[in-house]
Amino acid sequence: MVDLKSKIREIPDWPKPGINFKDITTLLQDKAAFKQAVDSLAQNFAGQQIDKVVGIDARGFLIAAPLAYQLQAGLAIVRKPGKLPFTTIEQEYTLEYASNILEMHDDAIAAGEKILLIDDLIATGGTAEATCDLIEKLGGQIVGAGFLIELSFLPGAQKLRDRGIPIISLIKYDHE
Amino acid sequence: MVDLKSKIREIPDWPKPGINFKDITTLLQDKAAFKQAVDSLAQNFAGQQIDKVVGIDARGFLIAAPLAYQLQAGLAIVRKPGKLPFTTIEQEYTLEYASNILEMHDDAIAAGEKILLIDDLIATGGTAEATCDLIEKLGGQIVGAGFLIELSFLPGAQKLRDRGIPIISLIKYDHE
Repeated sequence: MVDLKSKIREIPDWPKPGINFKDITTLLQDKAAFKQAVDSLAQNFAGQQIDKVVGIDARGFLIAAPLAYQLQAGLAIVRKPGKLPFTTIEQEYTLEYASNILEMHDDAIAAGEKILLIDDLIATGGTAEATCDLIEKLGGQIVGAGFLIELSFLPGAQKLRDRGIPIISLIKYDHE
Repeated sequence: MVDLKSKIREIPDWPKPGINFKDITTLLQDKAAFKQAVDSLAQNFAGQQIDKVVGIDARGFLIAAPLAYQLQAGLAIVRKPGKLPFTTIEQEYTLEYASNILEMHDDAIAAGEKILLIDDLIATGGTAEATCDLIEKLGGQIVGAGFLIELSFLPGAQKLRDRGIPIISLIKYDHE
């Protein structure tokens, strides 16, 4: 077994001073680590019905797509504004000093489908919560969420747990 | 077997008049079609050594990532400027009326690695050729390229063949 955390590269002060960015490209480039990461997430959700995996633009796609493939589920995507060509629903969310919007095609999920939410990293939970809102607007039932990395000193993971969503994170950091 | 072309949704006049956009989200959302697409690409390259699959930002990630997983290869990514946190190399390319830049981490590929280039669609070939240039700058050997969709009335696929790169496209359109 690969120590997945050892495959993450930390980039100090990126994209701005004080942020210790977690670069996942070094993990993805390592074939054994990449396979193990996808398989570990899959094993955690293998026992239950998953109709669709929802991946968040754009690094989330890198984990969500192979997981959907492995679980033999459909793959739905959440994107930044203006990227999706069909009719969309949107959800605004706030970051520290700004607000952003995420969009999803309005036929991406059918009512009652069981959904697994996937992103590369959960921090404050803004994008994850907005994605939950989008999924629920379409009538999807969120049965779990999976992340390569959890920044457990930030409140995102707890926010999802407070919504009753089981979470799996493969790598945790308890301080910046 | 699913008729993959029937799973593509055409969006007239998007993102601008005269373009008949090929929306792949309807294929991705169909679990049988998505699995078949990834498996078909994998089968075409299964007989040869592939060290890394290179996926192009952002829809290319949706195909490249499960293919890398299935082929048990590493996954390297090509991104639009400003998205990659480590030291990068860049390649400019021209579109109809503008020029764009693509970036890759300078440690994404090791010299001599055998590389499979993957994107969702090949049209004029601008991004694919720029990606080939990036891969070759790092010393990678491009052993093939795979696309979900080829617009065969545009010159991109032929440009890659002229570079000696074998191409697989699962779905072809011979006119707009």
